Formats: sequence, structure tokens, C-alpha cells
Amino acid sequence: MLEPIFHILKQAQGVLAQQNREQKDAALKAARAAIDAERAAILAANAVDVDRARSAGMKESLIDRLSLSETRVDGIMEGVDAIIRLEDPIGLVKAGWKTPNGLFIERITVPLGVVAVIYESRPNVTVDAFALAYKAGCAVLLRGSSAALESNRALVSAIRAGLGRGAPGVPDAVALAASGKRDEIDEILQARGFIDVALPRGGRELIQRVARNARVPVIETGEGNCHIFVDESADIENAVDIIENAKIQRPGACNAVETALVHKNAVLALMPLLAERFAGKVELRCDERAKNAVPIALRAPGGIKDASEDDWDTEFLDYVLAVKTVDTLDEAIAHINRYGTRHSEAILTNELKAAERFCRRVDAACVYVNASTRFTDGGEFGFGAELGISTQKFHARGPMGIDALTAIKYRITGDGQVRLG
Amino acid sequence: MLEPIFHILKQAQGVLAQQNREQKDAALKAARAAIDAERAAILAANAVDVDRARSAGMKESLIDRLSLSETRVDGIMEGVDAIIRLEDPIGLVKAGWKTPNGLFIERITVPLGVVAVIYESRPNVTVDAFALAYKAGCAVLLRGSSAALESNRALVSAIRAGLGRGAPGVPDAVALAASGKRDEIDEILQARGFIDVALPRGGRELIQRVARNARVPVIETGEGNCHIFVDESADIENAVDIIENAKIQRPGACNAVETALVHKNAVLALMPLLAERFAGKVELRCDERAKNAVPIALRAPGGIKDASEDDWDTEFLDYVLAVKTVDTLDEAIAHINRYGTRHSEAILTNELKAAERFCRRVDAACVYVNASTRFTDGGEFGFGAELGISTQKFHARGPMGIDALTAIKYRITGDGQVRLG
Repeated sequence: MLEPIFHILKQAQGVLAQQNREQKDAALKAARAAIDAERAAILAANAVDVDRARSAGMKESLIDRLSLSETRVDGIMEGVDAIIRLEDPIGLVKAGWKTPNGLFIERITVPLGVVAVIYESRPNVTVDAFALAYKAGCAVLLRGSSAALESNRALVSAIRAGLGRGAPGVPDAVALAASGKRDEIDEILQARGFIDVALPRGGRELIQRVARNARVPVIETGEGNCHIFVDESADIENAVDIIENAKIQRPGACNAVETALVHKNAVLALMPLLAERFAGKVELRCDERAKNAVPIALRAPGGIKDASEDDWDTEFLDYVLAVKTVDTLDEAIAHINRYGTRHSEAILTNELKAAERFCRRVDAACVYVNASTRFTDGGEFGFGAELGISTQKFHARGPMGIDALTAIKYRITGDGQVRLG
Repeated sequence: MLEPIFHILKQAQGVLAQQNREQKDAALKAARAAIDAERAAILAANAVDVDRARSAGMKESLIDRLSLSETRVDGIMEGVDAIIRLEDPIGLVKAGWKTPNGLFIERITVPLGVVAVIYESRPNVTVDAFALAYKAGCAVLLRGSSAALESNRALVSAIRAGLGRGAPGVPDAVALAASGKRDEIDEILQARGFIDVALPRGGRELIQRVARNARVPVIETGEGNCHIFVDESADIENAVDIIENAKIQRPGACNAVETALVHKNAVLALMPLLAERFAGKVELRCDERAKNAVPIALRAPGGIKDASEDDWDTEFLDYVLAVKTVDTLDEAIAHINRYGTRHSEAILTNELKAAERFCRRVDAACVYVNASTRFTDGGEFGFGAELGISTQKFHARGPMGIDALTAIKYRITGDGQVRLG
């Protein structure tokens, strides 16, 4: 039963919406100081979560995401600092004009409203999402995973205490949905009139659940079946560097590459170098022509496998790369538009026409020429703080900065005008 | 079973997305010429719809909305001309910057995709929606009411013939959902992966259906429970003019005023004038203080009634105005934020502070100072053509021009960059 919380958040958002940057930044500083002051309690709560997760047999990679340390708490506070440094996104006049009858119309940014963030076991998201929403004048309902419940309780308790201490703070603008039950997610997703946007951040299962059940506006983030197309004119050495970076710099990221598409006239030059670079590190799942381009001597044991149809459709998030040979640029584009998730797609080429055609025809949030797909990121784009990477077209697309939490309002100033026609 | 149509539309949208302004305008001109050429067939089809509607007992006001005439067909063609004159909204670079490592990032407008428009019995919407979508590079699925089926068939058939005649036209970018069954609406609303946005244009019942069933992004339009607040410092003569305009210039419009909120210090001056102006034309539903401010001599028979709680909540769309007296500006703001539909809200005042406070605190797409709410309209705002008035905050708010049918894409140009941190 979250309804009482919905009412409180909505009320608090109305108050927060009227605050100026000084007030919001002062409150964020107070929240940051409270996290610092409650450091010991936060780490103790996190230790409870980690112990419980380990006993329940959670994978070590997930335990790592769940775990806090002194350094990570420092990182969380630096995240708040970065958000304090952001310009206030509210009250900006994005356009203004006079109409023929003398009305003055302004288009002004306002907070989107109450934001629900539904996420998995990374406690840093708790603070990040709160601080971004608060700066945008939005109240926020945090729904983390049950595995991080104690950590999130300690963090939200510290934040609310900090907001309550400073005069302008609005502690009720942040709440934790803490029952740990799945039903709670559905209740959030159906709260029309209370939740202005829900941001699911998580795996395919969560996204599917959201797609089925949401009655509130949603920004979907996450899934990235990304491609790099190596055109016949590409600089092959550089192509190997870029594919390596996009694959292994952080294989679990949504902007990591999953399939390399290789022009038939580049495959003989590329594959030996790629197989050598990836030997013992990355499993290659190749089509016939790509496999045949790798000399037997360079085939690491188990390193080269045959690709199946399923591989084109899979976001491995692992040290696995599918490789497909294509006859033409257009075949690469068609493959991407069929199997891609409209996230990040790259062409490596020295031909202007090929670059243009690829960028225009590939349907994705981010299209790259001669760079790694790993740059799809709010920080790399210079947004200062990131809310996630939207894989939809509606409202926000690609890396989302704080602007994604704003809406607009028209202000029309007249001197007695009435409409005639 | 619309699925075959969904596939065709999606395919056609991919083709249309690549066209430049010249190509799209040439196709729109061809469609316009075909409507002109098929005028007789269109009017004959409309006569069938009108006869059938009249036999079924449709109200004359709705018959009027359904009916076409030579003049109205001219009006439809002028609408297409206005859209031809619009700048191409696609391919605009909205922002561009270099990152520290030398990547060049551009934010470029692209078509939103396949648009479904679900509307009632106004055949002009068929052509308007098609032309706006086409110019924005979007394919469009038109789902008009069954009452207008023959008219819509004739119009879409002419449009498709016109598009097919000119070399660059993409006839498959427009389709009519013509089964006339209600299930069809649900099929459209659930077509994730095919329909990029659904635009319901109609009454409360349609909006509710959409809210319950939509799995695709929606832009809600329509409902407008709009207020005018007459502050104590308002120019009373002008207030009467503005309220009259907002109420009776077109009572059925969503931007018509439904409740006047009157400051207690203005009520004695305003009400006699308002009662006199509205006598025999508009029924006033007043609270105690407003009623008592109308001299008995000015009370037209049946012209002044007692307001009930329900009246604050009602979009009359008729010659009825609710009137409530408030003690303070803040009481007016609270009333609007409680009962309003976040559409268009006005304050009439000569006090700067009151105007500022009202505009900041009222949550609505359009907030007015000293002007009629009737100006909430794409044409009045200078957008050239209007897609409707969004009453939501997400993606688009207020009067929507063609921009509401665009999304963005990031294009990132590098010279071999890989991500390090």
C-alpha cells in the first residue's frame, strides 16, 4: 500500500517545485553531509545486506555491485557534488515570441513531477537518483532491490535527516518503497495521477514487466545489442583497437559491442589481427567467411566458434563477440535495423558517403563514425550526471542528463486580449 | 487484424524517413491535387455517411462536424498548403559540441516513427493528420469513427492515389483502420514495436479507454476544465469581456472557461456586469457570495443557479459557467490545482506579484495573465498547423506543432577514439 506515500510525495513536489537553485543546492549539501556523518551506520547496514546475499548464494560479481566501502561512500558524495555543480534546469526560457495581436508567449522549463526509479542492487543509484530528481524539482520514489534494502534504508534515512536539518530542505520529497515485494512495482507502475514517470533500470525481466504493466509514462533504459561495422575502407589496426575497447573495457555495460559486422573485402585483413588480440580473452562466434579468415595457427582453443542465428539476437554482456561478414554497407545497415536495440551503432570507414549513409539509415539513439560505442554515456557526453540511457524515442533518447526530468509550461502575457477568429 | 498493415507502415516509414523536404512537399502537393480531383467522389461518400448518421438519430451538432461541403473541401486543401509551407522539422541540428577527447557530438531531429491517430467524426482530421505526419517523415495509421467511414475511405483513397502518382510519393505511409470495430482501437494501443505514438483525439470515454489499455506511448489531448481568476485589482470591464470570450466564443472547445474564480473584493463589481452580459445566453452556477452580488433585477429567469461541488469538477462544454468566490489568490491557486485538468488557466490582475505567483504556482500547460484562455491553440501560437493540445507533461505539453512528431538521434564523429576511463 504505497498510496499514502504517493500523496506525501505529490504534496512535497509542489513545495520543491517553487524552490530556487540556492535552496535546492543547500538541501543537497545538507544531505551530503548527513551521508558523511552516518557513514558508519550506512556501512554496517550494507554489511548486513552483503552477508545475507552471500549466504543466499549471490554471484560474486553481483556482491561487488552491492558492496559499499569507505571509498565508494566517498564516490557517492562526489556524485552529489557533481549534481550540486549542475545549472538549475528549471525556469529556463527555451523560447519566447510575440503574436500578431500582442500576446507574449514564453516556453519555460518546469519539473516533470514525481519520479519513480526502479532499480537493482547498486546502493549508489539510491543517492544519485535522489540528488538528480531533487535538483530538477522532482520528488522521487526509490524502489531498489530487496537485496539492498538495509543499505537503501540507511541511505534514505540519512538523506531525509539531512534535508530535515537545513531550513529549506523538503525531506518528504524522497521516499523508499521498502516492502521488498514484487507487487509494489506494479502498484508504482499503475499509479496514474501520482507518478509522472517511472524509470526502470535493470535487466530484461524488469523491462518486460514494465512493458506489460505500466499505466504511467516510462523511460526504458538498458538493453543494448550494439554493432560495429568494419567497412572495406576502414583503418584495420584502428578497427581492432576500437572493437577491443568496445568489447572488453566493460563487457557488462549496455554500450559494449556484441556483434562485429565485417565487409567481405575487410575480413581477411581484420580477422587474423582480431583473433590474435582476443586470444584467451574473448570468444569469437563467427560465420563461415569470418572463421575461414582466421589462420589455424591463431585459433586459440575454444576461441573461435560457429555463430548461430541466436547470436545475432543476443546481448552477451560477456567476453563473447559475434562476427558476421556482409557483402555491402546496406546489408550491414539492414542487419542492424533488424537485430539492434536502437542503442549505439558504429561504422569504421574512411569513405564519406558510407559514413553518411550509415548515420542516416541506421535507426539508433547514437550512431558513431570511427569511435567506440562505449562513449554512449552521460558523463562522456559532458552532461555532468546521468539518469540512464534511454532506448526509446519518446520524451528522451540516448544518454539522459537532468533535462529528461523537466517538462515545459507556456506563460502567456496579454493586456486584455480576446480571441476573434 | 491490423498486423499486416503495421508491417507495411513500418516499412514505408523507413523509406519516408530518408526523404528530403522537396520530395515530401511534392508528394503532399500530389495528394492535395488528388483530393481536388476526387472532390465529387469524396462528397458523395460523405453524403452516405451523413444520411446514415441522420437515420441513426445523430445530434445535428455532430452531423455538422461530420458534414463536408465544397467550401470545407477547400478548407482541407488549404490545410495541406499550410503544412507544405512549414519548414522541414527533420534533420535539424539542435545542438553540437566537441568533447575533451575530440569527439564531435550532434543532436539531430529524426521522425518519431509510425503514428496512430484515433479520432471522432471530423473528416478534415483525416487529411490534417496525414499531412502533418507525412511532413514529419512519419507513417500514419488513421482510425476515425465508424460514422465517418465512407468519407475517410474516399479521402485516404484519394491521398494514396495522389502519392502513387508522383515519383517520390510513399502511398504505403498512410493507412486507414476501417473495420469500424472497437477492438481495433485496442489492437492499435497494444502494438508495441509498431506504433511509436498513439494520439487519441476525442471525448472522455476514448481517453479513459486509452489510459486503461495503452501499451504504446500516448499523447493525451483534450480535457480542459479551465479557470479564469478575477483578482481584486483586475480591470472589471475587461474581465467581463475576457470571461465572455472564453465562455461563448466556442463553448465546445477544450480551452473554453468552465469556472470563474472571483476575489471577494471584486465580486460586487463583477457579478452585476457579468449577469447582465450573460443574461439569456449563459447559465451561471454561483456560490452564495457570487449569487448575492447579482441584483434581483438582473437575474434572468433560470439564469442564476446554485453551484454544487460537482460543478467545480465539470467540463460543461456548454453555455454554463460556474462561479466561485475566493478570499485570496492562494485559495484560487489551490482550487485550480485541485480541480483543473492542467490545460489553460488565467489570472486577470494589475498586480505584478499576483501575476507572478499565479503563473509559478498553477500547474498547467498554459498560464495566462490578462488574456482569454481561448488562445491555447497551435494556430494562435503561430505553429502553422496543430496536432492537438497535450494535457500531459511527458514528451509534449500544450499546443503541439509538428515538432511533437519528432525524436532525436545523436551522431558522434570521431577519428579512432576509444574510451579509457
